[in-house]
Amino acid sequence: MSKTIEYTEAIVPYRHEELMAKVAAQLTDKRYQHCLRVEETARQLAADNGVDVELAGIAGLLHDYAKQRDDQTFIQLIKTHGMDPNLVSYGNGVWHGYVGAELIKDELHIYNEPILNAVRLHTVGAPYMTKLDQIIFMADFIEPARDFPGVEAAREATAKSLADGVRFQIQHTLDYLIQKGAPVYPQTLATYNAWVGGVAPQFAN
Amino acid sequence: MSKTIEYTEAIVPYRHEELMAKVAAQLTDKRYQHCLRVEETARQLAADNGVDVELAGIAGLLHDYAKQRDDQTFIQLIKTHGMDPNLVSYGNGVWHGYVGAELIKDELHIYNEPILNAVRLHTVGAPYMTKLDQIIFMADFIEPARDFPGVEAAREATAKSLADGVRFQIQHTLDYLIQKGAPVYPQTLATYNAWVGGVAPQFAN
Repeated sequence: MSKTIEYTEAIVPYRHEELMAKVAAQLTDKRYQHCLRVEETARQLAADNGVDVELAGIAGLLHDYAKQRDDQTFIQLIKTHGMDPNLVSYGNGVWHGYVGAELIKDELHIYNEPILNAVRLHTVGAPYMTKLDQIIFMADFIEPARDFPGVEAAREATAKSLADGVRFQIQHTLDYLIQKGAPVYPQTLATYNAWVGGVAPQFAN
Repeated sequence: MSKTIEYTEAIVPYRHEELMAKVAAQLTDKRYQHCLRVEETARQLAADNGVDVELAGIAGLLHDYAKQRDDQTFIQLIKTHGMDPNLVSYGNGVWHGYVGAELIKDELHIYNEPILNAVRLHTVGAPYMTKLDQIIFMADFIEPARDFPGVEAAREATAKSLADGVRFQIQHTLDYLIQKGAPVYPQTLATYNAWVGGVAPQFAN
């Protein structure tokens, strides 16, 4: 299990147990255990897909670092960091990715862009995603304790290919949000259009 | 039935039967009959909602004027009229509204902006829609020959209020597109977010 991991690369300025403690300090035990499962799932997906396992594990462990901050903290950070002002109209479900990356820089002094971007995108995806981005996106969705109608199909798609997993998840999530009548951040639609709808990513916005 | 209508206002430079002939010349009989039903439904909704009946009828009659042009015509018009270049990535389902309004100006010399805008928006809606826009959007969706799961609920919602109808349609249509894996024009999402998702319309794009 992940508790016995010792880092061998100089990706972050912490030992594994130090980073675990920093994540644990920000979250309920239930959510912290989710982070450990995402770490483990991300390491497995990395091994299966030729991605650096230690890098993927760190991104997985960190992905929900900011999840339990209050809304005012997120809104303040959106303003002080000059982020898309439209973000304010959405909620924690979008913020803890985009804004979480800023908190990881500010508080943990981790500046590894592949990790930060995987954290940023894990809630909404993107038209272009690196394999690491795809791994964190999928590990969060299919970690062993996840249980929702379709999770087995999601696991099978991801085992076939990361891209199949991403396509499954973004269509499933968008459908879920719309049936609920929940707001959808435009980047979520851009991800869907690029991966499922066959629309070429648009750079001219 | 609409064939006996005589216009009494100076909204367009045609008599009713002249405008009918111009629409009929562009469409199969089946689609032309749909336009007559949308005209009639729009007039009824206008009468029920305090909107100019003649104006609504003209917009309803014209709403699909461009529907049967070929893709190359639409793509050429998007370029020559300096429209959003991203439109090219979508298809007739979006184009015949936005681009159709340009064809109505170019070929019929109708420049009534409330009519043109109702035609523009009838395929994707908008965060802000006039009552006339809402009437054409709904008349197209619920005209008597429409038959799909949910059409009766759509009719009931519209009878309750135009806004309830708009909310029903945009959620239903977006859900349909996503379940199909079809591309979704971002304006369609903006309409959904504003009417269903509770996101304030964004002007800063």
